[in-house]
Amino acid sequence: MPDNTVDTLIDARWIIPVEPARQTLSRHTIAIDDGIIRDILPTGEAHAKYSAKQHFRLDDHVLIPGLINLHTHAAMSLLRGLADDLPLMDWLNHHIWPTEAKFVSPEFVRDGTLLACAEMLRGGITCFNDMYFFPEAAAQSALSAGMRAAIGMIVVDFPTAYAADADDYLSKGLAVRDEFHGEPLLTFTLAPHAPYTVSDKTLAKVLTYAEQLDLPIHIHLHETHDEIEGSLKQYQMRPLERLHRLGLLGPNLIAVHVVQANTEEIRLLAEHGCHVAHCPSSNLKLASGIGPVLEKLEHHVNVGLGTDGAASNNRLDMFAEMRLAALLAKGQSRHAAALPAHQALAMATLHAAQALGIDSLTGSLVIGKAADITAVDLSAPETQPCYDVTSHLVYAAGRENVSHVWVNGKLVLDERHLTTIDIHELNARTRFWHEKISNQKSFSEGQP
Amino acid sequence: MPDNTVDTLIDARWIIPVEPARQTLSRHTIAIDDGIIRDILPTGEAHAKYSAKQHFRLDDHVLIPGLINLHTHAAMSLLRGLADDLPLMDWLNHHIWPTEAKFVSPEFVRDGTLLACAEMLRGGITCFNDMYFFPEAAAQSALSAGMRAAIGMIVVDFPTAYAADADDYLSKGLAVRDEFHGEPLLTFTLAPHAPYTVSDKTLAKVLTYAEQLDLPIHIHLHETHDEIEGSLKQYQMRPLERLHRLGLLGPNLIAVHVVQANTEEIRLLAEHGCHVAHCPSSNLKLASGIGPVLEKLEHHVNVGLGTDGAASNNRLDMFAEMRLAALLAKGQSRHAAALPAHQALAMATLHAAQALGIDSLTGSLVIGKAADITAVDLSAPETQPCYDVTSHLVYAAGRENVSHVWVNGKLVLDERHLTTIDIHELNARTRFWHEKISNQKSFSEGQP
Repeated sequence: MPDNTVDTLIDARWIIPVEPARQTLSRHTIAIDDGIIRDILPTGEAHAKYSAKQHFRLDDHVLIPGLINLHTHAAMSLLRGLADDLPLMDWLNHHIWPTEAKFVSPEFVRDGTLLACAEMLRGGITCFNDMYFFPEAAAQSALSAGMRAAIGMIVVDFPTAYAADADDYLSKGLAVRDEFHGEPLLTFTLAPHAPYTVSDKTLAKVLTYAEQLDLPIHIHLHETHDEIEGSLKQYQMRPLERLHRLGLLGPNLIAVHVVQANTEEIRLLAEHGCHVAHCPSSNLKLASGIGPVLEKLEHHVNVGLGTDGAASNNRLDMFAEMRLAALLAKGQSRHAAALPAHQALAMATLHAAQALGIDSLTGSLVIGKAADITAVDLSAPETQPCYDVTSHLVYAAGRENVSHVWVNGKLVLDERHLTTIDIHELNARTRFWHEKISNQKSFSEGQP
Repeated sequence: MPDNTVDTLIDARWIIPVEPARQTLSRHTIAIDDGIIRDILPTGEAHAKYSAKQHFRLDDHVLIPGLINLHTHAAMSLLRGLADDLPLMDWLNHHIWPTEAKFVSPEFVRDGTLLACAEMLRGGITCFNDMYFFPEAAAQSALSAGMRAAIGMIVVDFPTAYAADADDYLSKGLAVRDEFHGEPLLTFTLAPHAPYTVSDKTLAKVLTYAEQLDLPIHIHLHETHDEIEGSLKQYQMRPLERLHRLGLLGPNLIAVHVVQANTEEIRLLAEHGCHVAHCPSSNLKLASGIGPVLEKLEHHVNVGLGTDGAASNNRLDMFAEMRLAALLAKGQSRHAAALPAHQALAMATLHAAQALGIDSLTGSLVIGKAADITAVDLSAPETQPCYDVTSHLVYAAGRENVSHVWVNGKLVLDERHLTTIDIHELNARTRFWHEKISNQKSFSEGQP
């Protein structure tokens, strides 16, 4: 007789597995063993079949795949709201870059990433695709938070406190990847920052490594009108065309933003199996515009959702991105049926996993995948009555309704309490950076 | 020696009074007596000057004026998410109107409005501008919740369970106003539903009453392209022009939505001192479009924010509306400085009070006004660090961070617990309606 003792049984009022699409299970149970989803079955059957070390009864809750944030700069949470309501170039040149130049260090990245992990886990996010300096520190924080992450090996062509030149960035990034080889929660991407900060020569090297090591390439692309204009001036072509000529378009490419794209470019992305990280809050807040997301979906470009960093959003909140993506698509297209709730949820889970190449591991609640699970409590007045669970998740619920989160089978949020992060120590570190950065800011604001 | 005992002292880390504009007070205290803001002064001075029956120390919080929801159909919270991701006419004709025809009654309105009050108070909203059938029941629920409301005396030209014809609607509405005369929390508006549901004759009557009784007129206007087309066909003019000819444009008019408006029409609204209730979530969700809010502001049209009803939003969440209004304006205009945080906050408070004609009473934290106050706790990881409080309120915080709410000096939300609403009874009533409406819905969905 087989051993039917499992680590965990979660009984849920509803389960939305995302795979198969548009399915909602009622009064089902997930059995977790050794970090893996071992079974999904009606609750009555589950308790006849399995006994469990841990048992959760979530009578008012829906279980969904852990949300995946397909684009962020986690450590920038320490710069949250530092400089809002400013034109992009003023924001970058006079606030973000000077502050980064002065403060960014392994300690900054460690503390800032941990703060971001706390926020993301409390918001039901189990995995993030990161791009920032000192990725070793980001990796350490993700691991200590028990969170899944795709760590970007950032590359730019200018020196920073982190590295001297493109080769230095690349070798440091690859060393980090070697260091964490075999960590089940971590994957890596090559992360050339943007077409306007990375030369052809560097992009060629990035491509070589991506092909040799079969790694995704995570790059900002066609974010603003100025980026396109600058590229036309410098290269006599648009950035996407430049990446195409350099051979970068392919199923390994995760293009972030793509706010500016004509139909031909969208077709090009689709033909090459490229992925897009759609970040609607950031695109609006920095006044980049409203991206043609529906046209991408029509052309079968795979689109995931991202928050971008907390300096330009300012919430690392995938519920907000799901809702905004769905609402914007309707308002923009004048079709209320455009980008329905189930599609927004798939973009925040399975489609992001596909972009990162980790969809055999996570992104949906399927037997054999890792138990990356978010429970959302729908019992509050704000989410009552409930006629359609998926619709409620996207249009009515918010991250504040997330009650429990499991990553790789481990309970990391328990009744809204983080089990892996010491919140008092985190607050103390955040206060430390706040004071340091505020002092600098007051000083610079005193300047003419 | 004067009696310096007051009912309540609230010490706050920050206060944003909204009047004067763009001010943030640090470590100040609000003294409340007899429902009125008696003083606002540095905390040290406050405790030397006053003693209080109740004392609140809100060390991590910002106090703002209670938010004002300038357009809702509160009772529709019972239809939250009943039919999403559908084209407008399908949504109305096959889901909302049949359900309303079958279920709307005084009990439905009483229970639905109370559910909406629970949600709104928990979200820091102290006043709502309502338009729905059986306004007497809405008024009763607002009073039992201890919430301020502008109750709409709804008028349409067709019969419903509530009234037979325009005169019947008007006389019933005016009777409700008489019944609640003298209630300090209630004001009334004439609420002709929309240009396409109310005839010229009825609008003329509405105008007469509005002038005689000095009441605001609360009407949907220029919400969709179809509304404009229909009016051109039926009246050979656009709805706004029709209202203009009928003499309805004036400082008593609260025009809801105004998504469709050309420059000439915006000038007309400005010249006549009309007010606009901007409902960005609803306009996107129903695919009406993105209204020209910046152009209205440039022309000095007074604009407040509203959630619309929970069947078309689906959150009665003014934090979401502030954030979306600010973000959309930036994305649409391609100017990141457009509609800054302090302006969004003013639109959700003072400007809405001005639209309702109650700005001498509420809408800002000023000595002599009613103590309608919302406390927002900024200590969570999601709102840390905090460099700019107003920016955090709009871009980082959410309604889930609201900790305390006072209406007219009375504490109605205490550490997120409602003091005026029995949440268990509310849940039971909501379940009752959910079951009733679900059964009907399954039935109708079974039809071809």
